[in-house]
Amino acid sequence: MKSRVSIKTIAEQVGVSTALVSYVLNNKNENRINKDVAAKIRKTAKELNYQPNQIARSLKSQKTQTIGLIVADIANPFSSQIARIIEDEAKKNGYSVIFGSSDESEKKTHDLITLFVNRQVDGLIVAMPEHSEDQILYLKQTGIPFVLIDRYFPTIPANYVAIDNYNAAGKAIRHLLANGHRRVGIISYKTSLHHLNERVRGAVDLLKEEAMVGEVRIDHAQEDVIKAIDKFLAGDNPVDAIFATTNLLTIDGLKYINSLGLKIPDQLAVVGFDETDAFDLFYAPVTYVKQPMTALGQKSVKILLDAIESNGSIESAIFDTELIIRKSSVIPR
Amino acid sequence: MKSRVSIKTIAEQVGVSTALVSYVLNNKNENRINKDVAAKIRKTAKELNYQPNQIARSLKSQKTQTIGLIVADIANPFSSQIARIIEDEAKKNGYSVIFGSSDESEKKTHDLITLFVNRQVDGLIVAMPEHSEDQILYLKQTGIPFVLIDRYFPTIPANYVAIDNYNAAGKAIRHLLANGHRRVGIISYKTSLHHLNERVRGAVDLLKEEAMVGEVRIDHAQEDVIKAIDKFLAGDNPVDAIFATTNLLTIDGLKYINSLGLKIPDQLAVVGFDETDAFDLFYAPVTYVKQPMTALGQKSVKILLDAIESNGSIESAIFDTELIIRKSSVIPR
Repeated sequence: MKSRVSIKTIAEQVGVSTALVSYVLNNKNENRINKDVAAKIRKTAKELNYQPNQIARSLKSQKTQTIGLIVADIANPFSSQIARIIEDEAKKNGYSVIFGSSDESEKKTHDLITLFVNRQVDGLIVAMPEHSEDQILYLKQTGIPFVLIDRYFPTIPANYVAIDNYNAAGKAIRHLLANGHRRVGIISYKTSLHHLNERVRGAVDLLKEEAMVGEVRIDHAQEDVIKAIDKFLAGDNPVDAIFATTNLLTIDGLKYINSLGLKIPDQLAVVGFDETDAFDLFYAPVTYVKQPMTALGQKSVKILLDAIESNGSIESAIFDTELIIRKSSVIPR
Repeated sequence: MKSRVSIKTIAEQVGVSTALVSYVLNNKNENRINKDVAAKIRKTAKELNYQPNQIARSLKSQKTQTIGLIVADIANPFSSQIARIIEDEAKKNGYSVIFGSSDESEKKTHDLITLFVNRQVDGLIVAMPEHSEDQILYLKQTGIPFVLIDRYFPTIPANYVAIDNYNAAGKAIRHLLANGHRRVGIISYKTSLHHLNERVRGAVDLLKEEAMVGEVRIDHAQEDVIKAIDKFLAGDNPVDAIFATTNLLTIDGLKYINSLGLKIPDQLAVVGFDETDAFDLFYAPVTYVKQPMTALGQKSVKILLDAIESNGSIESAIFDTELIIRKSSVIPR
């Protein structure tokens, strides 16, 4: 394969010094250079498709017009949708986005942050995994502007954009109670992530002793969702509704409920979290908590650009959610 | 906010020259430097969390252990799944992946390629949009190793990894014919993309005059899917089955068929393309063409790393697909 076109290649082809090529292509001292030679250098550079070395340039300007985005799991529709929105918004503001996926791993987050910081992105938008407090402190030390999205850490002041998770769960539970459901099984991850635990707290605070919580290990989700639902349905006082606190937990729950032959909503009501096509196409379209994805993505970019341009104060935004009510949670009378 | 820690910061704090700091941190001439001073410089660098400037370093080594990945649309489950697999495989080989989404735009692909080339990634894996032949030629000119994935251009020799699209469609149609279906509506994009047109050709070659083709504009997909299905069902000789050639076209089709109140498979059989949770959860689980995602992702990384390490010959791999047969296409007797 051909090697990349350098100033040297152009100099050899035109028959001049590399210094002269460099002067011309950087628009320096041009009035001292023969016009025909300059034109020939430019023409050759174009023909060879010469790209100025961005790395060398960056050393001078220290601005790259690039945002680094670290999502939690690129294979999760929440991550990929938010990535798309952030990209569109960044583009509107003249920024490119390069992204990586932490796959909920602290180690991978560390590697990606190091990679992006060393590649001199102008700023970062990051969905942090569990136990990543040290990474946030490190980011603060580097001085690189960053915004946390979706997940935030109440004890660490930082720019962030998130939803009101406590009230989101509250809306789901109040709806179930208003529709005659009494006892609710809550499926959530076993995690220290604040935003997910707030969803459980918002539900349990309303349900009190009528709440049953099934905790799912993220690396054994399918297996643990089955165990949780089995527990909800066993004994003298089974649940009549299920609230699943993420899109993937909802889908795993629906698959298992289907395999048990239980009719939704008649035998079991279901409320999920986040949007997916699967919810729309389900025989009883699924009631779900809808996050304002566009607002979340756009605001994270706005806060980041403010931080890049002004190095100002710490900003955060907490958005409200909407409960989209459909057949899966409403028993026809 | 604090600015990034530079050699200058460390030099000021220790009270030495920047040159001395640079010597110590780059392990140069160390036996000529006072040991205590060197230790103090190292300690200060560590305390301040100094990160060597990767950009400056890259200028020398020209190796970044980074792969750039450009997917067609990060919000599409096919893209996000393949991204995840490529990332895992790259990681196993000591490479990080940074990615961007072209959103099926030639302009965005151009911008991303320029961005990645200038950031000196060691190689690229790219799902090219329509009309991007010039971009491939440009990539060849830069000399940067690259592999096309999913989409390839038969007239341009390049590394690529893809599926046998013609036979994939053939499997779907032979299955429908074997199950008593006769007339099939094929939903596909109006595009010059070879891999999608091969899916249509594979179906039409078997169906001959019993094929009806509905072409969908990518930027008016929902609207055009409705028009296509209306056309399929109108007149004296309506279709009894639908073959949709991508996951999103399948989902839009199912939504519209649901809204018409048509029962699948009794009134209309459906075969889709690619996996999604929505197909599993549908009341008649959807028969679909399954691409070997893991093999595609892993092979693309393998070919790229071969190219990076050996600058060798052009390689390609075409994988077979599997038809996953479920209720949506089989009328119970």
